[in-house]
Amino acid sequence: MILEVATLNIKPGLDIEFETAFGEAQKIISSAKGYLSHQLQRCLENESKYILFINWETLEDHTEGYRGSEEYLQWKKLLHHFYDPFPIVEHYRSVIN
Amino acid sequence: MILEVATLNIKPGLDIEFETAFGEAQKIISSAKGYLSHQLQRCLENESKYILFINWETLEDHTEGYRGSEEYLQWKKLLHHFYDPFPIVEHYRSVIN
Repeated sequence: MILEVATLNIKPGLDIEFETAFGEAQKIISSAKGYLSHQLQRCLENESKYILFINWETLEDHTEGYRGSEEYLQWKKLLHHFYDPFPIVEHYRSVIN
Repeated sequence: MILEVATLNIKPGLDIEFETAFGEAQKIISSAKGYLSHQLQRCLENESKYILFINWETLEDHTEGYRGSEEYLQWKKLLHHFYDPFPIVEHYRSVIN
């Protein structure tokens, strides 16, 4: 299992609109091959910052399968215009939990 | 519930030593007041980078209770010398999960 971590900086004043769009977008990702679970959390210290966690079965389910899919085009269309700067996305593997 | 997120950059070559020390340190934090759960994950794109997640009942359980405790001195002694630079710690609240 691989954890995708994306730090999302949302343009000022668009938080409610972003959260609404994310509510739609999460339906897309939840049906992707290899998707296991996700969480969206909002930063207390910086209200325009969110962190998105997505658990995938394998790294390739995200980087090749999802990013190469038709569904990803819809995801991008719903969400990418909210970001400034564009998110840094990294992948993690559990050491101890 | 509040999620503490700490991005940990470990000095080169100290990964095994750090993970061993963390194995000890997690016993300390697991008994702290307000502690709920934790996970340590290692970055695939940058092997000297880890991310630590700790769920707390309240923000103050971390920022006041734990950081003001005797136990935190032990935690620091076990872990703080591995970090370069010193970690950025933020707190998050779930929006959608």
